[in-house]
Order: sequence, then structure tokens, then C-alpha cells
Amino acid sequence: MTDILSADELHQRLLEVGARRYHDKHPFHVRLHGGGCTKGEVQAWALNRFYYQSRIPEKDATIISRMHDPELRRSWRQRLVDHDGGPGEAGGIERWLHLTKALGLPRELVEAHRGVLPATRFAVDAYVHFVRERSLLEAIASSLTELFSPRIIQDRIEGMLAHYDFVDADSLAYFTARPPQARRDVEMALGYVTAHARTPNEQQAVIAALEFKCDVLWSMLDALYHAYVEPAHPPPGAFVAGPS
Amino acid sequence: MTDILSADELHQRLLEVGARRYHDKHPFHVRLHGGGCTKGEVQAWALNRFYYQSRIPEKDATIISRMHDPELRRSWRQRLVDHDGGPGEAGGIERWLHLTKALGLPRELVEAHRGVLPATRFAVDAYVHFVRERSLLEAIASSLTELFSPRIIQDRIEGMLAHYDFVDADSLAYFTARPPQARRDVEMALGYVTAHARTPNEQQAVIAALEFKCDVLWSMLDALYHAYVEPAHPPPGAFVAGPS
Repeated sequence: MTDILSADELHQRLLEVGARRYHDKHPFHVRLHGGGCTKGEVQAWALNRFYYQSRIPEKDATIISRMHDPELRRSWRQRLVDHDGGPGEAGGIERWLHLTKALGLPRELVEAHRGVLPATRFAVDAYVHFVRERSLLEAIASSLTELFSPRIIQDRIEGMLAHYDFVDADSLAYFTARPPQARRDVEMALGYVTAHARTPNEQQAVIAALEFKCDVLWSMLDALYHAYVEPAHPPPGAFVAGPS
Repeated sequence: MTDILSADELHQRLLEVGARRYHDKHPFHVRLHGGGCTKGEVQAWALNRFYYQSRIPEKDATIISRMHDPELRRSWRQRLVDHDGGPGEAGGIERWLHLTKALGLPRELVEAHRGVLPATRFAVDAYVHFVRERSLLEAIASSLTELFSPRIIQDRIEGMLAHYDFVDADSLAYFTARPPQARRDVEMALGYVTAHARTPNEQQAVIAALEFKCDVLWSMLDALYHAYVEPAHPPPGAFVAGPS
């Protein structure tokens, strides 16, 4: 029998999940941020990550569709704006396409998700299914990897600018925009989770939801590592970098 | 514009998918059947593959739930019998647990899917979601990897018996039972697909469904290879073999 946790204890437990399982510890990210990636590896990372980016608004719309409270829906709706943009205003998806363009990937290839690793699709789709099938509390809790994202984004911007001559500040505009959005998002989601996880079972479900989301991100990097770093064995039909 | 294929041409195209993408070509299987795996690797393979086995009847029940024709449902129902067994009669799931027991894995661990790779869950769950969300034609077509399974099973039985002293014929009973079931299954599914894919689009969807299913099986082996062979970097929370 698990005891009920105070709000501070629950917060602490969530931070511990990140300390153990967030993908900043993955060897692929160490390599990416440390300058060890080839251009082809960076291309493969950006191409696969775009599949994730492109599904995030579907994930968020699914969450909104399950909320009965207009204020809650309004608050979560900001995430759609952040990713899809507004009239004459680029959102996160467009900014990611700016990055893939700077990396030399044709926009049609990226938008059609051609060559994306099946494991990327399976992991990302698992996230979309999770927020559809689990409780709203778990769906919201699974977004809490944003607790850890401002830090990794800072490392990424600094590392990529320092190490790759095919990357500049303009091409990294997606990342520059994200940290304030993530801080605002996580404040809201953490407030919701703290207020609504009122039994030990609900609190454990919240922690498990964050672990699940860490597994999604981690397995995307495992797949990249296997396909492009070691043993560099891309599955049939996957992206293969051209001569650089 | 793609032309309509004859039944023979469609069959030929499906065989070509297998020749390019079926997981008998994956380095993990080459290693498994050739005697190159450690006992821990064989354990990890059997543990992860059990997650697949355990979801197959859910996949098949989903397909049955979408069929309007009693005769079709009766025919597909045999798959539930094959895997779940009958009164006093073991099915495929029980036979797989017989294998994991012979490999020294505690039954509770296997049945609870403890330590299963997240990528295994994501791939297998993608298969279950596929048969729920796509057309019945595509759902049935995705089962056609059984076109290729009798051959790989034959290789597996011979290879594992020849190379591993921790495996005997009794522990491989799952595989001995499968080929006649698979041949019967595939005859029915191939007949259905041939009769119901009547436009070029439907035929292409059938081919794509088989590619999808090959991707599911392939990505499961990619994840095993990454976690346990090279760089042998299991994700947080995954199975780690004990001293053997």
C-alpha cells in the first residue's frame, strides 16, 4: 500500500523520473550536442523528430476533446497556437521545417514523412493513443517531460551552434521559441496534476504516465542510434543520408 | 496511375515484400538461429516476443469484431483457439510460457511483461491499433506475414536445437505446432484479400499493410539488437540478464 504524497513530494518524484529516464542522458543526444554527429545523422534526427512535431497538435487536440471545462480547454488551446501558428504567424511546425530546410532536406520529403523509421512512428503513435485511451489525468501528466525540456534545449542550442557549421541561430529558431512556452505549459499541467491526483493510485498513475512519455522519447533515440550510429543498420525503406 | 493486378501478380508482389522486408533477414535472427546469441539474449528475445504473443488474440478478436459475416468470423475464430487453447488443451500462449520457463525466466515476470522493451510495446500496440483503425481488408492483409513464417520457424527449430544446450525439442513445442496453423491461416487470408482487393488503390493498401507488418516485426529485432547486442545499451527499466 502506497501512502498519499504531498504536492511537494509528488513534484519531487516527478523530478526523479526525469533524472533517471529523460532523454538528455541518451548517448545519441550526448553525441548530437557534443558535435559527434555527422550531417547525415543530424538530418536523420531532424527528419524523424518532425514526425513527433507533426503529431503533437493531434495529441493536444485529443486532450482538448476530452476536457469538459471551457477554461481548461482555452488554456490547452494555446498549445495548438504554438505549434500550428496563426494567420501570417509561423508556429513550431513551420519553424521545424525551417530547420530541416537549413539541413538540406527537401520539404516534400519531410512533410510526407518519407524514410521515417517505423520505430519513430510506433513510439509517437503510442503517445497519441495513450492520451486518447488513458484517463485525462494521465494524458495531462504525460506532457510533463516539459519539466525538463528548457535545460536540454539550452544545451542543444549552445552545442549545435558551437560544433556544426551547417547550423546557425536562424535555423534553430524552433528551440529559441520553446522554453518560455514549455515553462508556461508545465506550470498549468503540474497545477492540474497536483490538484487532481488525490489518491495514491492516481498519484502512481501520474508518475507512470511520465515514465511512459520518457520511454517514448528514449526509444526514438534508440532507433536513431541503431539505424545511423552503431551498427548503422537502417531498416528497409528508411532514410539514407546522401554524400555531404 | 497504378494498374489493376491479376491475382497471381498480387500474390507475386506480396512475396516480393517478404523477400525484401521479412525479419528472417534481420541480423538478430541470423545470430539467434546461427548460435551466436548468449543465453541472456535468447531470454530477452523470448521475453519480448511474449508481449507480441500475448497481444495476438486481442488483435484477432478485434478483427473478428469487425466482420459482419458469421462464416468469416467462425473461420477467424480458430486463431483464438490456437493461441488461447481450450479446456484442458494448451494454446500458443501457454506453449510460449513453456519456452520461457525452459529458459529460466520466472512465469510471473513474463506474464507481467516486466522488463519488456518500450519499443516492443510500441510496435506490437501499433499492430493492434492498425487492425482497429484501418479497413478490414488492410487488417486481414497485415496477417500475411504468415506467408513466410513456416520457413523461418523451420530454420529456428533446427538452428536452436543444434546450437543451444539450454534448448530442447520439448521447449520448442510452440514452433512445432505453428506451421500447419500458419498455412491454413494464410490460405484463408490470401483468399479474402485476393477476392476483396478489386481496385488498384485497394491492392496497394494490401501491399502497404504487409509492409507495415514487416516493419513491426523488424523494429522489434532492431530494439533487441540495440539493447542486448550492440551497443548493448538497454533502456531504463528493461530486462537485464542475470549471471548464466
